[in-house]
Amino acid sequence: MDYIHLLKKRYATKAMNGRVVPDESIENILEAIRLTPTSSGLQPFEVFVITDKAVKSNIREIAWNQSQITDCSHLFVFAAWDTYTADRINHMFDLTNEIRGFINEGWENYRQQLLSNYTKKDPQQNFEHAARQTYIAFMSAITQATAEGLDSTPMEGFDRAALDKLLKLNDKGLRSTLLLPIGYRDAEKDWLVHLKKVRKPMKELVNYI
Amino acid sequence: MDYIHLLKKRYATKAMNGRVVPDESIENILEAIRLTPTSSGLQPFEVFVITDKAVKSNIREIAWNQSQITDCSHLFVFAAWDTYTADRINHMFDLTNEIRGFINEGWENYRQQLLSNYTKKDPQQNFEHAARQTYIAFMSAITQATAEGLDSTPMEGFDRAALDKLLKLNDKGLRSTLLLPIGYRDAEKDWLVHLKKVRKPMKELVNYI
Repeated sequence: MDYIHLLKKRYATKAMNGRVVPDESIENILEAIRLTPTSSGLQPFEVFVITDKAVKSNIREIAWNQSQITDCSHLFVFAAWDTYTADRINHMFDLTNEIRGFINEGWENYRQQLLSNYTKKDPQQNFEHAARQTYIAFMSAITQATAEGLDSTPMEGFDRAALDKLLKLNDKGLRSTLLLPIGYRDAEKDWLVHLKKVRKPMKELVNYI
Repeated sequence: MDYIHLLKKRYATKAMNGRVVPDESIENILEAIRLTPTSSGLQPFEVFVITDKAVKSNIREIAWNQSQITDCSHLFVFAAWDTYTADRINHMFDLTNEIRGFINEGWENYRQQLLSNYTKKDPQQNFEHAARQTYIAFMSAITQATAEGLDSTPMEGFDRAALDKLLKLNDKGLRSTLLLPIGYRDAEKDWLVHLKKVRKPMKELVNYI
């Protein structure tokens, strides 16, 4: 199915039926996330894949009691770096040199530039930048989920501080940005399933210069 | 081509050859942007599609002199709402009611909740939220561009204040977040074209709970 058809097919599923998603599909979604482009290739985030029932229940309690959190198969949590550090930046540049098998002067200059820029910035500003990158990865996740014949529900409505504490994200230098339950729709309980997708007309969205 | 193959094929093109992209491909990319899911369906951004040579040159000057800005076919600029306002929120809810042809009580309660939440928040916080949504749309744009056989180069390196002034974005209540030149690679001048794509191993990116 081509990309535009995937976009048309996908919708924010309001009820799920608890059916378990095959491991292979989850691995494909994670591979799509892993391959997603990010700023300077830093991939400034981690993803938590939660199947533990007790943990899901605890998260549901701090996320407006949304049923998909416990009725999904796998709950994905996207968490961005709380800031950019020299270690984190150097790690990606070193990995690049290792994989490509050579050191490029322009690339090393770019490393120094990033080290200088990011480590001078306010951590909150760095976090906001890293958080934006999780939204790119999130788009990959829902696209691949749709390609796998799965449903998903993007969620920003949850208590971030409580979730960070629950998953001990601060210890890892991370802060949660998005929840994404992945599973199968319960069409009978899903009021949204038969409704038209609504988008602005092109003229409200696009300007030609 | 399936989504994971599109991700593998795509790379941040470092040199472009000036060839003009057919209108149909640009329209498909814009349609992918238009169909992209966003928080509460608000689509809090606009896209500027720039082909004017003088404007491209002016933008190149405030974007580290990156050659793709003038050597691309179409330069996309993503610009997020500077804040969420009651008018902007009501417009999308009204459009939804108009397209679906009925008024749903739960949906109207949700409208009131968003009106109350967003209009109380600091504009900068609202902008950061809207900016994240442009990164979802941006991912759609580069995916569809790859599907169209095109190249693209995501860019965050530019003077936002200068670009906002140049395009008079403040007058429209917008702030720029991303540049995306779209066109065709100049393989001979592109040092990146034959290099391996580098991504972290899965174990550094994913945690199972």
